[in-house]
Amino acid sequence: MQLSPERRNTFGQQGYLFFPNCFSEDEVALLRSEAESILRTERREVWHEKTGAPRTAFAAHTYNEAFRLMAHHPRLIEPVQQLFGEPLYVHQFKINAKAAFEGDVWQWHQDYGTWARDDGMPEPRAMNISIFLDEVLPINGPLMLIPKSHRHGTLQAGHDLQTTSYPLWTLDQDTVTRLCAEAAPPGGVGIVAPTGKPGSVLMFHGNLVHGSPPNITPYPRKIVYLTLCAVSNHITKFTRPEWIAHRDFTPIEPVADDALLAYARAHRVAAE
Amino acid sequence: MQLSPERRNTFGQQGYLFFPNCFSEDEVALLRSEAESILRTERREVWHEKTGAPRTAFAAHTYNEAFRLMAHHPRLIEPVQQLFGEPLYVHQFKINAKAAFEGDVWQWHQDYGTWARDDGMPEPRAMNISIFLDEVLPINGPLMLIPKSHRHGTLQAGHDLQTTSYPLWTLDQDTVTRLCAEAAPPGGVGIVAPTGKPGSVLMFHGNLVHGSPPNITPYPRKIVYLTLCAVSNHITKFTRPEWIAHRDFTPIEPVADDALLAYARAHRVAAE
Repeated sequence: MQLSPERRNTFGQQGYLFFPNCFSEDEVALLRSEAESILRTERREVWHEKTGAPRTAFAAHTYNEAFRLMAHHPRLIEPVQQLFGEPLYVHQFKINAKAAFEGDVWQWHQDYGTWARDDGMPEPRAMNISIFLDEVLPINGPLMLIPKSHRHGTLQAGHDLQTTSYPLWTLDQDTVTRLCAEAAPPGGVGIVAPTGKPGSVLMFHGNLVHGSPPNITPYPRKIVYLTLCAVSNHITKFTRPEWIAHRDFTPIEPVADDALLAYARAHRVAAE
Repeated sequence: MQLSPERRNTFGQQGYLFFPNCFSEDEVALLRSEAESILRTERREVWHEKTGAPRTAFAAHTYNEAFRLMAHHPRLIEPVQQLFGEPLYVHQFKINAKAAFEGDVWQWHQDYGTWARDDGMPEPRAMNISIFLDEVLPINGPLMLIPKSHRHGTLQAGHDLQTTSYPLWTLDQDTVTRLCAEAAPPGGVGIVAPTGKPGSVLMFHGNLVHGSPPNITPYPRKIVYLTLCAVSNHITKFTRPEWIAHRDFTPIEPVADDALLAYARAHRVAAE
């Protein structure tokens, strides 16, 4: 999958790109089922909400074949390689559960803030890719983005160790208010919250400010959160466990475009 | 304002009615400004979030002329009088702030559960009316309703004194999941979250299950929450303060349809 000049321009301006239905339901059904199994395990890579519900499972691509294929999928690798102009490696791989009723808030933050401060990543040349495993609805805690906010570089942030179970460098209310005002069209709102069917894909810049509200509905909102970093931009500080901030900088060799589909069909799960 | 037979039928089936732009921006601008002033006061009727941000201001119609006119407005009184077939009194009047960044969750609940248990209201013959003072967006903590859930009568509930600063009889996850499944169209979602401009009005049955997520955005979502009870159905237990559950059962005499507009024009505030 190659990006048109218009889409590359949109990414530069807005800081994100949305691809509805990038993966088919056949491809996603198995991933959803595998994610549910993984989130139920007691592995150290699975973190929980304060209520005990699963919040985040790290590094599933290292031990699960379906997620390994997803992390090597050309529909994700190629456009990012095109934008960065060089090979990529997997910096981080998460399944974020945003469980029904219990999925808690992610406060406003930039991911590159963490990669720079905690991992010593030299430049914001890593892309966040969110792959929807469930339908993302306006009501089940969708990811909210502040368009254009990636142009401000790395903003001052405080280390939030209180609000949720996940330590995060978060932005203050004045900064978020200012960024939203800058992003808003006249009389409008400076936040977007892309929604769509399972298999939709959202790519956004490492400095794009984002957050998500809690999920109080019975509808879970699982997404995969794949971060691809330019190989020449690999991290230099190893303060976090290897399964959170990976240290294998081998360039990703994409699999065939139909590899995930073939695997999913061979391991078909009953439709819900 | 009279309801057509179709709308009365919709109310019976779905448990709610939505009236976009029921009040004009001229009428709402003053109410919004007055609400902001009231929420900043230290009156005992103003309750706060755990963070200190204002959450709810009670009984503003008893001491503020603009809100007195709103609580006596024929666009609100007449349709409810028509549905209940008798005069009404004000059971409760709240301004819910759902403040920018700090407006917290309202867990899933039925209001009549509280009116019956705490106030001894004989029947669910009281209507909730939500008047939007700010634009209600999908992202700023809109009220979520489960259509048709009012047909189940008063459901079993637990008294939540922990989650937020407001004591509430809340429903468990299994009940909410079941009600959503019943409300959902085939392959769809059993929750609606009406959104719209300031001045829009949402009326819903006292037994309709509803809740709202926190507001993590810079966009406040103030609504007035007016509860009109049939006079013959007045409360019989006085366990809550008079300014929370009113004891004046005098039938409301509606003001003229242009009374609020005239008052707003005479006290015009600068547009934002």
